[in-house]
Amino acid sequence: MQTATAAPSVGVLGLRAAYRAGTLRPRDVVEAVLARLAARGDDHVWISVSPAAELRERAARLETLDPGALPLYGVPVAVKDNIDAAGLPTTAACPAFAYTPTVDAGAVRRLREAGAIVVGKTNLDQFATGLNGGRSPYGAPESVFGGDLISGGSSSGSAVAVAAGIVPVALGTDTAGSGRVPAALNGVVGLKPTRGLVGASGVVPACRSLDCVSVFTRDVADAAAVLRVLAGPDPDDPWSRTGAPRPRGLTLAIPEELDLEGDAAMRAAFEAATDRAVARSTGFVRTTVEPLREAGDLLYGGPWVAERLAVLQDFLAAHPDDVLPVTRSVVESGAAYSAVDAFRARYRLQELKAWTDRLFATADLLLLPTVPTTFTRAELAAEPVVRNLVLGRYTQFTNLLDLAALAVPAGTTADGRPCGVTLVGPAFSEDRLLAAAEALLAPVPPPVPTPVPSTPEVP
Amino acid sequence: MQTATAAPSVGVLGLRAAYRAGTLRPRDVVEAVLARLAARGDDHVWISVSPAAELRERAARLETLDPGALPLYGVPVAVKDNIDAAGLPTTAACPAFAYTPTVDAGAVRRLREAGAIVVGKTNLDQFATGLNGGRSPYGAPESVFGGDLISGGSSSGSAVAVAAGIVPVALGTDTAGSGRVPAALNGVVGLKPTRGLVGASGVVPACRSLDCVSVFTRDVADAAAVLRVLAGPDPDDPWSRTGAPRPRGLTLAIPEELDLEGDAAMRAAFEAATDRAVARSTGFVRTTVEPLREAGDLLYGGPWVAERLAVLQDFLAAHPDDVLPVTRSVVESGAAYSAVDAFRARYRLQELKAWTDRLFATADLLLLPTVPTTFTRAELAAEPVVRNLVLGRYTQFTNLLDLAALAVPAGTTADGRPCGVTLVGPAFSEDRLLAAAEALLAPVPPPVPTPVPSTPEVP
Repeated sequence: MQTATAAPSVGVLGLRAAYRAGTLRPRDVVEAVLARLAARGDDHVWISVSPAAELRERAARLETLDPGALPLYGVPVAVKDNIDAAGLPTTAACPAFAYTPTVDAGAVRRLREAGAIVVGKTNLDQFATGLNGGRSPYGAPESVFGGDLISGGSSSGSAVAVAAGIVPVALGTDTAGSGRVPAALNGVVGLKPTRGLVGASGVVPACRSLDCVSVFTRDVADAAAVLRVLAGPDPDDPWSRTGAPRPRGLTLAIPEELDLEGDAAMRAAFEAATDRAVARSTGFVRTTVEPLREAGDLLYGGPWVAERLAVLQDFLAAHPDDVLPVTRSVVESGAAYSAVDAFRARYRLQELKAWTDRLFATADLLLLPTVPTTFTRAELAAEPVVRNLVLGRYTQFTNLLDLAALAVPAGTTADGRPCGVTLVGPAFSEDRLLAAAEALLAPVPPPVPTPVPSTPEVP
Repeated sequence: MQTATAAPSVGVLGLRAAYRAGTLRPRDVVEAVLARLAARGDDHVWISVSPAAELRERAARLETLDPGALPLYGVPVAVKDNIDAAGLPTTAACPAFAYTPTVDAGAVRRLREAGAIVVGKTNLDQFATGLNGGRSPYGAPESVFGGDLISGGSSSGSAVAVAAGIVPVALGTDTAGSGRVPAALNGVVGLKPTRGLVGASGVVPACRSLDCVSVFTRDVADAAAVLRVLAGPDPDDPWSRTGAPRPRGLTLAIPEELDLEGDAAMRAAFEAATDRAVARSTGFVRTTVEPLREAGDLLYGGPWVAERLAVLQDFLAAHPDDVLPVTRSVVESGAAYSAVDAFRARYRLQELKAWTDRLFATADLLLLPTVPTTFTRAELAAEPVVRNLVLGRYTQFTNLLDLAALAVPAGTTADGRPCGVTLVGPAFSEDRLLAAAEALLAPVPPPVPTPVPSTPEVP
């Protein structure tokens, strides 16, 4: 059982009340934390601890501020050692991996900005791989229930730091249960938020598409208070998700560069259509479309080709001569990709998707040519694979980026070929696309609105 | 140029008005379609056409119904030949692949239920792989703009069928642009809805995570009318997505079977916590948790291990002796998986996710033990890998299935060990979880409500 020689810390809501009532100062809390750390000695909970002088200095700075203005004013927190806290090494429980970050992880920055005091970095199963708390060269913390019971992991130190009353709040991470299993085995609350609700920038990845920052507290009300501070957009985490409302007007994004294979007649027809649309829009922004092209290139030049093979592999094996050679060669190229390739491509795609989300936070709709140019059957036969790819230049990113699209005719080129344009919008924007096509794409003369110069940076 | 010997068909809204005004009957429209088919001859647009007798019979049946009751009453439609229409072969433009389905694809069923007349199945780039319309053993349709211009693909036949005025509506598919490129090259509207808004059951997959059923019409208003019919849940497509509202009470799902490693004291403690929670709930359902376990097993027993390797591969190569052997062996197992494995696992995961969505359409929250049992450090050392997996049994599916979770203490076992329970909810249900933990998990005596017997079937 835990040998508590210093009284366990008060929780977030208790501290808040005491600070506001003036019955407690940050310096008192820092001294109590230091006493509890000293009393427990080497309990394998911590990998590094902030120097006492720094903790006292942080307390002194906080005492110049209004306790009522900061939701986590003077709350001591522990941070799992796979999450960056500026000035303390990040080891992920692998000494050879260690580095000392100069900036906080997104979640740690939010805690500090809310007034929290970062006490130190806690032990974990190496690289957050494990649920038991024993896979660390820094030792295995014991559960506060004693009896040689394991602490659970991988967020072993954070769970014990809260359960033993050293700090009222700790950050963990939770990919497979690393925030909940040690909560259960130490009798504390473990909140694993929705992936993306709390930003994961500055976290050493385990499974990047799944990793979550989690919260340990001693009661549910404290967990709710901490989540209110942590939840929200993280511009440095492409997996960050928010329910932020999008504009709902008719602001158009139009491409600042286009590759139309030198088809000047098509360019003129597209520009005429763009002018007509802009004239009826509520404003427009010019945007690069390079991130869209990069995403689209993944579909045939990246591991998504393996999706086609996943479906057709058995059929191709049984009917080697019944498939067109061109189809067969495209599909079979999927065999060259590993699962690691697939995940890495997914990460890059997520960065491009985050760029798209920022674009559609600025504009309601994106206007693109549907195809860069037209080909005769003879021209296609001369370059069947390359020219097929050209046709998809402004369409093939759409599903990868989870967008909706409406292709509509927009007249003809001067030499009588069809010009098509596409309105692209976020997922579930069909009603907007259909209404905008009627509103923007009928032929009218253009009095042009002023451009809005801000488009997101390419990641 | 198109040689239209029969007048091009009226659009959806035009047909609707004429039928309601009584100036047109389905038999007139069917005869006009048959005349246009005959006039065009072998134009490489169709792979199969419904027999004339069947089309006439369908018209006769429709004439017994009220034209105002069906949104697509008497509308002739073409269906790309990678989408099942009962009774017509599905070839995907590969004769050796052909089969004749006995049931319609989800999208075709919705069209027929809305009163549409399925005229036939249209040509495509084989297996929907291509954007040009020439990769088919059934020939290459010419663009209606003539001049030997390609039709575009892969939905070549559907685009030309609409553009040439044979039918006012056609279904295509659009993974990379297959619904938009041929729309542009034939001067018609091509709507590619958000992935999942229109069900893709009964569609030959190209990239299952990306495939969309698309719509060709001659104007935007017609596309909107068809989308209203097609959009909605498809119980046979695990990628189907809807914005259907979820219940917002305190109905609990509780597991009908649990594997607690024979820990009878833990079972008693969990059941006591469950009884307390059920007593305060607004109702409960019993559910299997087998789909959750299957999803969780993918995290360490499937290609997601490759995510860990994607992050650590370079570090492992540079520091072969600096990582714990157990960590290294877990992470390196990721190298065995191909991209095809990763996509196939993703497909199964999506089926399990669809099951979870159905569960949370029935219940607001799922109550589970956080860990099946506890271990001492000695017990863990005896079976380090197997017992680590045991600890994650009721947590490791959560992020894969995009769920939120709150682990809270729920007292102790009779022999003094911690018992933890977890409330699990859909993404972004944190407020519900935090409120429910306060409302349901404090110790009170139980007067038990009646069970609701319906839980979704395991896929």
